[in-house]
Amino acid sequence: MPAPPKFTEFIDSHVDGFIQRLADAVAIPSVSGDAQHRQDVFKMGSWLQGQLNSLGVETKQVDLGKHIMDGQELQLPPAILGRIGDDPKKKTVLVYGHYDVQPAEKSDGWDTEPFKLVVDEKTGRLIGRGSTDDKGPILGWLNVLEAHKALGLELPVNMRFCFEGMEESGSEGLDDLIKSETAKGKNGFFGDVDCVCISDNYWLNTRTPCLTYGLRGLVYFKVTVSGPARDLHSGAFGRSVHEPMTDLVQIMSKLVATDGTILIPGVDDMVSTADAEEKKLYVTLDYSIQDIEEAVGAPIALSDDKATVLMGRMREPSLSLHGIEGAFYGPGAKTVIPASVSGKFSIRLVPPQTPDTVEPLVFKYIESEFAKLNTKNKLKIENLHGGKPWIADHKHWNYEAAKRATEAVYKRTPDLTREGGSIPVTLTFAESLGVNVLLLPMGRGDDGAHSTNEKLDKSNFVEGTKLLGTYLYEVAAITA
Amino acid sequence: MPAPPKFTEFIDSHVDGFIQRLADAVAIPSVSGDAQHRQDVFKMGSWLQGQLNSLGVETKQVDLGKHIMDGQELQLPPAILGRIGDDPKKKTVLVYGHYDVQPAEKSDGWDTEPFKLVVDEKTGRLIGRGSTDDKGPILGWLNVLEAHKALGLELPVNMRFCFEGMEESGSEGLDDLIKSETAKGKNGFFGDVDCVCISDNYWLNTRTPCLTYGLRGLVYFKVTVSGPARDLHSGAFGRSVHEPMTDLVQIMSKLVATDGTILIPGVDDMVSTADAEEKKLYVTLDYSIQDIEEAVGAPIALSDDKATVLMGRMREPSLSLHGIEGAFYGPGAKTVIPASVSGKFSIRLVPPQTPDTVEPLVFKYIESEFAKLNTKNKLKIENLHGGKPWIADHKHWNYEAAKRATEAVYKRTPDLTREGGSIPVTLTFAESLGVNVLLLPMGRGDDGAHSTNEKLDKSNFVEGTKLLGTYLYEVAAITA
Ligand SMILES: [Zn+2]
Ligand SMILES: [Zn+2]
Ligand SMILES: [Zn+2]
Ligand SMILES: [Zn+2]
Repeated sequence: MPAPPKFTEFIDSHVDGFIQRLADAVAIPSVSGDAQHRQDVFKMGSWLQGQLNSLGVETKQVDLGKHIMDGQELQLPPAILGRIGDDPKKKTVLVYGHYDVQPAEKSDGWDTEPFKLVVDEKTGRLIGRGSTDDKGPILGWLNVLEAHKALGLELPVNMRFCFEGMEESGSEGLDDLIKSETAKGKNGFFGDVDCVCISDNYWLNTRTPCLTYGLRGLVYFKVTVSGPARDLHSGAFGRSVHEPMTDLVQIMSKLVATDGTILIPGVDDMVSTADAEEKKLYVTLDYSIQDIEEAVGAPIALSDDKATVLMGRMREPSLSLHGIEGAFYGPGAKTVIPASVSGKFSIRLVPPQTPDTVEPLVFKYIESEFAKLNTKNKLKIENLHGGKPWIADHKHWNYEAAKRATEAVYKRTPDLTREGGSIPVTLTFAESLGVNVLLLPMGRGDDGAHSTNEKLDKSNFVEGTKLLGTYLYEVAAITA
Repeated sequence: MPAPPKFTEFIDSHVDGFIQRLADAVAIPSVSGDAQHRQDVFKMGSWLQGQLNSLGVETKQVDLGKHIMDGQELQLPPAILGRIGDDPKKKTVLVYGHYDVQPAEKSDGWDTEPFKLVVDEKTGRLIGRGSTDDKGPILGWLNVLEAHKALGLELPVNMRFCFEGMEESGSEGLDDLIKSETAKGKNGFFGDVDCVCISDNYWLNTRTPCLTYGLRGLVYFKVTVSGPARDLHSGAFGRSVHEPMTDLVQIMSKLVATDGTILIPGVDDMVSTADAEEKKLYVTLDYSIQDIEEAVGAPIALSDDKATVLMGRMREPSLSLHGIEGAFYGPGAKTVIPASVSGKFSIRLVPPQTPDTVEPLVFKYIESEFAKLNTKNKLKIENLHGGKPWIADHKHWNYEAAKRATEAVYKRTPDLTREGGSIPVTLTFAESLGVNVLLLPMGRGDDGAHSTNEKLDKSNFVEGTKLLGTYLYEVAAITA
């Protein structure tokens, strides 16, 4: 059951209004990571609530408490919960999105003012902070609601909305809300939810729509080597004492090889090797070495084989060295022997890895390598934080509905992808609600979500709105 | 020929006045590395010039030009050149010192105001920035001049003074001055200098006076590995591309071992192994493992053998890893793949090593190790700066005079030491003037020259003043 033609016609004939609404949303600098902008995040939440109310959605703001940021205690932005439809004969779809954005300053290298939506008629791009992450997708849902209200059309499903204002700053408070609501069972806000749809990631490229069914997890480590009581001068003490940097760099050099192999015994081994059938999944994805090299701006792909590169990102763990705290980091030359240095690295996890199963392998290995150094310096290893990987059943009717909707709107079969990064709330919804979660991206792989000149192509905004609406009809029609 | 008894008596009976003068000097915060304090450096130069003039020294300020610091063009503090005595029958001693100091703020951890000299009667310490580095030693010379003027005593030698105000900031301009003056030959300011005496380093410990006849040189490298055009997110790109940090850490891990051995082929080999006789020099020095472990505040000496530790500092090269520019260095956890990272390291050099002979070994080795990595990232190696090591003939009469003076004042034979760090002007004087240069320290090894709570022991100030005066008499008496 595709969407009724008058729905898609309405979308096509109201694009200017949709873009104006996106401009209004982008104009509110709802940067959750900057205390100076906290009031703007609240303003954005109220703006969104007003929009939902005017489109017939019953809403409430949920207070998520306080937290400390930049040394001050701040009120967390509220979760905006919304509901429309209570027909027991219809399925109930939960939509998640976030109304906060990443920081942006024109001086970061933006070509235009980041909080003023610019419509570039030549390229068809809608440029501005939050255009694609995640205001555009949220507004896609508003567009769908507006069309139905204006046309007097009944929604094909019951809808529930969960919008937060802290996603870019660790989603503080949201997990507790989801868990306490699901603890109420059928009487909780999420009690009758049949499936979840999240539009907060991107196509693999700039051409082909995709459905995303997996996310990597993460575990982040800090390895500290300490020696002298204070920083020393390398003239006075070089070759007289054990230097913490020497030892730390030895340890860091033993974690990952140039080709990406994780050298910590057992970590790579936890993941099964892809068989021919699985490998074929990656071979068929619309992707090329050129895509990744354009994305990173240099010919540095780990392999010339596209499937190998994609598997490295989607179905294999990775280990990245991020930096060293406590060492000299400025420009120029300073002849310091730093007293205590902390190497930072993280491992992206894939099933069946979890932070709990990987941590002991990391600790044991680093401790044994450090012992081999025969140094008098001291070692400390910390697990700073982590999250499990997530993978969904992409043969579920929720994915099938999204596939049919994509075929109806884009006239092509979507790619089935996994993401290398994490959207932790995905796992929370999947585990707490016990229903299938679908990631249905609106934007393209080159949108630059956290970067300068963030954009959403107008065509993705328009066709993406049709996709979200059509998806609801396909969910309604499909036999669960 | 020791100094006349009335000289040492004068010193002993005028201590309070000497300390007051030191307090006046410390009160001028002549921090050369801070543009905000540049006027104070000038003020200090004029104060010093005034003191010299009032003690009968003919002086001139030499303009050293301008430089850029903290983004502003600043006038360099002048060199203060002074001369007293022109008797062709006397030897001529050139004294060097610096009237600028390291930065200091009480909030750095000082127990007292850094620019207010505190006399701690209990410990006998004179506490304040510049007390030992290098205002105390400079004032030691003023004390000697004052005693001779007050007593109507003729100085036993002709004296030349060269005081600069940029030592803590790279001695900018001074080398040019020394070279242009020496180019004038006999007519230059340094034309008739027979030997140089610099009092700007420290005893090896807190007990035994020493004469210093060697300094290590330095060569400082920056190794940059670059990959993507911008920083990447480790979720999106981990295990898809070559990561610069992975490669840089591999390179840095191959430079130096935990035990201090330099792994760059040929670098350690350039230096001859100490034979039994040379080793004995270090065995006899008044030093212990406890001394170094107290100095660094932790039991991290590279060896339990005192001579090995001392040779590591004094007669062997050392390689220290200082840090990484461009990587994540803050507290907390950031999942960045840095686009371009620069490792900083330096090698302390001993004869016959020079920056010019060591550089090609470093470049060749790093290039070949980088090639082995088989990475698509790019490598760049830079030699940021360097200076040659210096070693003097400690059997020269200049050293013999200082030894006799030490025996006269301290009733003990001084230790003969080499320093692990550099005082670049030492080499400039030695090479340009072609005369023997002596390092004759006033302060103790625990003075904390560049640290908080910098101090000079009152006894070192008083006996050190006697030592400087007595040294002049021994120079005059000795047969060259
Ligand atoms: Zn997002
Ligand atoms: Zn985001
Ligand atoms: Zn100094
Ligand atoms: Zn100094």
